[in-house]
Amino acid sequence: MTVEIICVGTEILLGNIVNTNAAYLAGKCADLGLVNYYQSVVGDNAERLTESLKLAAGRSDIVILSGGLGPTEDDLTKEVAAEFAGKALVMNEECRDRIRTYFEARKMDISENNWKQAMIPEDAVIFQNNNGTAPGMAIETEMVKMILLPGPPNELIPMFEESVVPYLKQFTPGVIESQIVKICGASESRVETMLKDLIDRQSNPTIATYAKTGEVHIRVTAMAPNKKEAAKLLKPVVKEIKSRFGNDIYTTEPDVTLEKAVVDLLIANNMTFTCAESCTGGMLSARLISVPGVSEVYKAGFITYSNKAKRKLLGVKKLTLEKYGAVSSQTAKEMAKGLLADSKCDVGVAITGLAGPDGGTKEKPVGLVYIACSVRGEITVKECHFRGNRDKIRESAVSYALMLTRSCLLEYISKVTFGKK
Amino acid sequence: MTVEIICVGTEILLGNIVNTNAAYLAGKCADLGLVNYYQSVVGDNAERLTESLKLAAGRSDIVILSGGLGPTEDDLTKEVAAEFAGKALVMNEECRDRIRTYFEARKMDISENNWKQAMIPEDAVIFQNNNGTAPGMAIETEMVKMILLPGPPNELIPMFEESVVPYLKQFTPGVIESQIVKICGASESRVETMLKDLIDRQSNPTIATYAKTGEVHIRVTAMAPNKKEAAKLLKPVVKEIKSRFGNDIYTTEPDVTLEKAVVDLLIANNMTFTCAESCTGGMLSARLISVPGVSEVYKAGFITYSNKAKRKLLGVKKLTLEKYGAVSSQTAKEMAKGLLADSKCDVGVAITGLAGPDGGTKEKPVGLVYIACSVRGEITVKECHFRGNRDKIRESAVSYALMLTRSCLLEYISKVTFGKK
Repeated sequence: MTVEIICVGTEILLGNIVNTNAAYLAGKCADLGLVNYYQSVVGDNAERLTESLKLAAGRSDIVILSGGLGPTEDDLTKEVAAEFAGKALVMNEECRDRIRTYFEARKMDISENNWKQAMIPEDAVIFQNNNGTAPGMAIETEMVKMILLPGPPNELIPMFEESVVPYLKQFTPGVIESQIVKICGASESRVETMLKDLIDRQSNPTIATYAKTGEVHIRVTAMAPNKKEAAKLLKPVVKEIKSRFGNDIYTTEPDVTLEKAVVDLLIANNMTFTCAESCTGGMLSARLISVPGVSEVYKAGFITYSNKAKRKLLGVKKLTLEKYGAVSSQTAKEMAKGLLADSKCDVGVAITGLAGPDGGTKEKPVGLVYIACSVRGEITVKECHFRGNRDKIRESAVSYALMLTRSCLLEYISKVTFGKK
Repeated sequence: MTVEIICVGTEILLGNIVNTNAAYLAGKCADLGLVNYYQSVVGDNAERLTESLKLAAGRSDIVILSGGLGPTEDDLTKEVAAEFAGKALVMNEECRDRIRTYFEARKMDISENNWKQAMIPEDAVIFQNNNGTAPGMAIETEMVKMILLPGPPNELIPMFEESVVPYLKQFTPGVIESQIVKICGASESRVETMLKDLIDRQSNPTIATYAKTGEVHIRVTAMAPNKKEAAKLLKPVVKEIKSRFGNDIYTTEPDVTLEKAVVDLLIANNMTFTCAESCTGGMLSARLISVPGVSEVYKAGFITYSNKAKRKLLGVKKLTLEKYGAVSSQTAKEMAKGLLADSKCDVGVAITGLAGPDGGTKEKPVGLVYIACSVRGEITVKECHFRGNRDKIRESAVSYALMLTRSCLLEYISKVTFGKK
């Protein structure tokens, strides 16, 4: 079964609001195994809405429309859909009563136009609205099933969960299950090249890659009559991907971010973390502290933006700064060393670089960043060259620092485990 | 001129990402005076993309496509658009060189598929990408102008501002001039109420409000035959808005963020800044350090996440933490005091709060944040109650801290200026 999403609202066309309804509805439909090939947005205009509805009904089995169910003249989704289906609008007593109760409970006057919301196309399946006055509905014709939902997300979402999911389940052929594999430290094109043979012969499951800053996510998706069969299809493909990328895979959990993977690794090994940031100015700390429960491993950190701060707070030598400059592997190393000396943490990361836009030279161009990671005194320093504007360079540096922390930690743990230390 | 937006990407159809590009592009087109009647989303599929492109080209003058310009086989927006326009793809030397430079600077290997991004339809106008490898382009036919942009927002947005806006301006009727007025410390509904009479009788210029975290931006837009006439229309309306909001307006410059306004105020008054962050964990520093030139005023900062760090680095008393707790106005005040005592900075901000999801109690619920600002020893402490998830609470706290810093600074400066000190 295919499903298509039409969001109605001039405010979306003007860019005044971000269309989160489409993302929500698409995600839910994917979970139900409905295939979504098209989404569209039209304004509160009868002619263009009719045109879009015709197009959608001609190519999809189910059309979900959100928005335009309000009480004003602007709101015409229901009128357009009823007209298209050739159904008359009739006053629905239950809806009428619910609207009356809604207003009475709030001690508000009912305007005449509010009753418009109780007019329902004949034979429609009604989805009651527990968070507002506009009922949702399904209008069925031989050609298409149209599902009309109110636009406000705090009405649409509960209505979808409570009423639309049960309604839609009668049409779903099976399930779609996805497995995510998240990789750090490899470019998207490299990941694709390494997966080319699998991607070339894919049909079910399918494999898709998505690039994030410093990361690539691989999504493997299987369609099957039930969850168990879907899992069976996914398993060998995910296993093969795991064998190809090994330790570069930091998680296969959808909710786990790279910062959470690092925090989890620290917690599992009972290690504490600290950092000193220059050009990134707190972004690494901010990402780590976005993880609930980070307090077990992260106690304190430093923003050492000036040379003086690097000397005073981290004990970087004046001579080092003078001889090699603040943006140098020597300074990064001393920053990491000083961090651990004073804080008694197990792991310390220092970042120093040139984020621009000014201050670059031929020898030290904008985008040059040194990142040092010390795990119990064993220091690794990396020289990186990032591109883009100030924000992009800083964001890349933070992603790289997380990746470096993870790889240094894994190396240290494996050494300890295999008794080489 | 009408414009239509097509976003390409299976990840949008699966609901994996929210389509912020469409909102961004729609807003920008509205600012340029281009009329947007339709937006749509299709997956990485040649047939369906071709169908959508045909439909759009038949009803709109300009079609903007985002996504599908990557190096992989999935990425086929350029191929489909070139085919539709009847243009051959040819290797572009400049694009090829830029890709080579990009990878060489990163000391990364170039996979064969990367060169695909240097293949450009003949006669296309190229928009260089300063933040990635995929160039954008405009393909012009008699029927339609197609603008192809990379999908990642950190590539699409700068490319649009730098290259696409100047390109599109040739097609806009007369000029559209906007003036932004940025306000901090007032809710959108309060701003709307204070502007209701102006909004009700608006036609040209128009007035629109946009809510950001902790801020409201008012955009006044005039359409006129030339810049001079447009400026004449804008002037009295902006003047009236300024008189209504006074000091709550932190800038009327489009590029000035709240953090830049604070940094500029510090520079203008020759004052240095430092901060100590608990729940925000570096986010305030990161926002300030995003401003180029911040090194004049910001030298060092602290992430004091644990109680021990608050004591050791800021000198908060053990008794204060025991008696009032880490999240209290007393602790915030001592943090700010300790900050300035040691650092010899002029302005210090301390943030301590409960960002959740756990750790809330009836007396101290999740969302409770104390922010203290000290200007040369005069300390102001504010108790805030923010709503939303962990990220949203932390973001709100940072915005509020910037707003508080600005208002404390303005008050101090005005006192000094009027000789009350």
